[in-house]
Order: sequence, then C-alpha cells, then structure tokens
Amino acid sequence: MTFKINKKFYNSSYHITDLKLCSLRLHDNFRFPWVILIPKRKNIRDISELNSKDQILLIKEIVKVSKVMKKLFKTNKLNVEKIGNIVPQLHIHIIARRKKDKTWPLSVWVVKGKNYSKKDLNNILEKFNRVLK
Amino acid sequence: MTFKINKKFYNSSYHITDLKLCSLRLHDNFRFPWVILIPKRKNIRDISELNSKDQILLIKEIVKVSKVMKKLFKTNKLNVEKIGNIVPQLHIHIIARRKKDKTWPLSVWVVKGKNYSKKDLNNILEKFNRVLK
Repeated sequence: MTFKINKKFYNSSYHITDLKLCSLRLHDNFRFPWVILIPKRKNIRDISELNSKDQILLIKEIVKVSKVMKKLFKTNKLNVEKIGNIVPQLHIHIIARRKKDKTWPLSVWVVKGKNYSKKDLNNILEKFNRVLK
Repeated sequence: MTFKINKKFYNSSYHITDLKLCSLRLHDNFRFPWVILIPKRKNIRDISELNSKDQILLIKEIVKVSKVMKKLFKTNKLNVEKIGNIVPQLHIHIIARRKKDKTWPLSVWVVKGKNYSKKDLNNILEKFNRVLK
C-alpha cells in the first residue's frame, strides 16, 4: 500500500506543492495564513516514528516553509505545531501570527475557522506559487 | 552577554536536565505531563533562526524527549508545539495527551493550568530522573 493523505485533509486544505519529504497544503482558514506539512510516509503518527534521515528532512522543510511564511506575510511570529488529536496522521501546522490577528496572543485553536472565498483562495495560492517556483 | 532563560520560565517551570542544545524543564501544570525544551542560544525566537547544526540537534532532542514522554506516561499521543506568543524566547512544548485528559481532543490551551502540589512535583521529577540518568 502506498502513502495516502487522510481524506479529512482533502476537505480542509489545498495542495500547494510537494517537497522531498512533505506535501505542503494550505489550511482552509481565512483568519490566519496557515499551512500544513504532511510527511509522505505510511502509518506515521509522531515525529519520533520517522527515521533519522526523515527527521532531518522534516526540520529542514519546517525551516524552509517558515522562511516562506515570514517573507510572504511580513511577520516573524510563527506557531509551529504537531497536534494530531483529531487526525492522527503526522502533520505539522505552520501559522503566521500577527499582533492584530483574531486571537493574538492566544492560540489559533480558541476560535472557529472561516473558509476562504474563491477570490482570496486564488490570491494566496498565487502568492505561494510565486515564491516557491 | 551569555544565554539566559527568560524569567517567566523560572516562575512557571522546573529544571529537569540539560541536553546538548536545550534546557529541559517541567511546565508547572498538573493537568498534563508537559515539558519545555529551551535552546541555550541567545536572541532566538524561531526555529528558522537557529543555524543548521542546531536545527538538527533540536529535532534530535525533540525525538529523544518525545520517546521519554511516551514511555513515562504510557501514551503515543504527543503535542509538540512552538508557540512563543507570550514569551518570545524560542521554546518547544512537548505534552503527553490521553483520551481521558482534561481537554481531549481539544488543545491544552483551552483550559487554565493547575500547579503541582509539592508531593506530585517530587514524584514526577523523580520519574524523569530515573529515566534520564
């Protein structure tokens, strides 16, 4: 059986690009610039279950995407979170925060999400494409 | 100027041990087994600001401590989070979760913390010492 992305991610996020280890997806929440990194490995629920090589790839991809987020959204405040309470498949949230965002300084989890409009979705996906190509 | 741990951590956590990159501390919240890893580097607020060598040390120490948490608290559910909205100095939370804990499957941030009693604090610090020595 090959690696598969959990169906819930298809309903809640959009493909941006594939990195060496991870699939990079935009989380469908207009309130925060928010991406998820999903390692393309089967049956992995925790960072500690990745092999050493993949652990290093993961931190490098977290750093790469962190730099993209800081640049695109003009902030140096990032939340980087491995939670997985709802969807156990290993995935890392990287969220650009601002002092004026909806929940600052609280967690993004204390407020309900809001889906992107088609227009805003296109805009943000274009932004990522410009900086990642 | 040498590296210093932010004073807020002294009020909210207890020293467990020092690893090569990070100081490992117990977060003072009886509701969840919860530690923080603080890289012993000056003026670092984000993972992407560490140099490549330290990034790799960080992921290795996250994995090491993750394995300790899973073993000590008999769970394979961990939350691993870099937030830093309140205290900007880079620190990583590693929290052992259970389906019966106070906020499952929600974030630990949706409930107020509860400090350890002296007895419970001693017990948990002893546990860490046994497995880390």
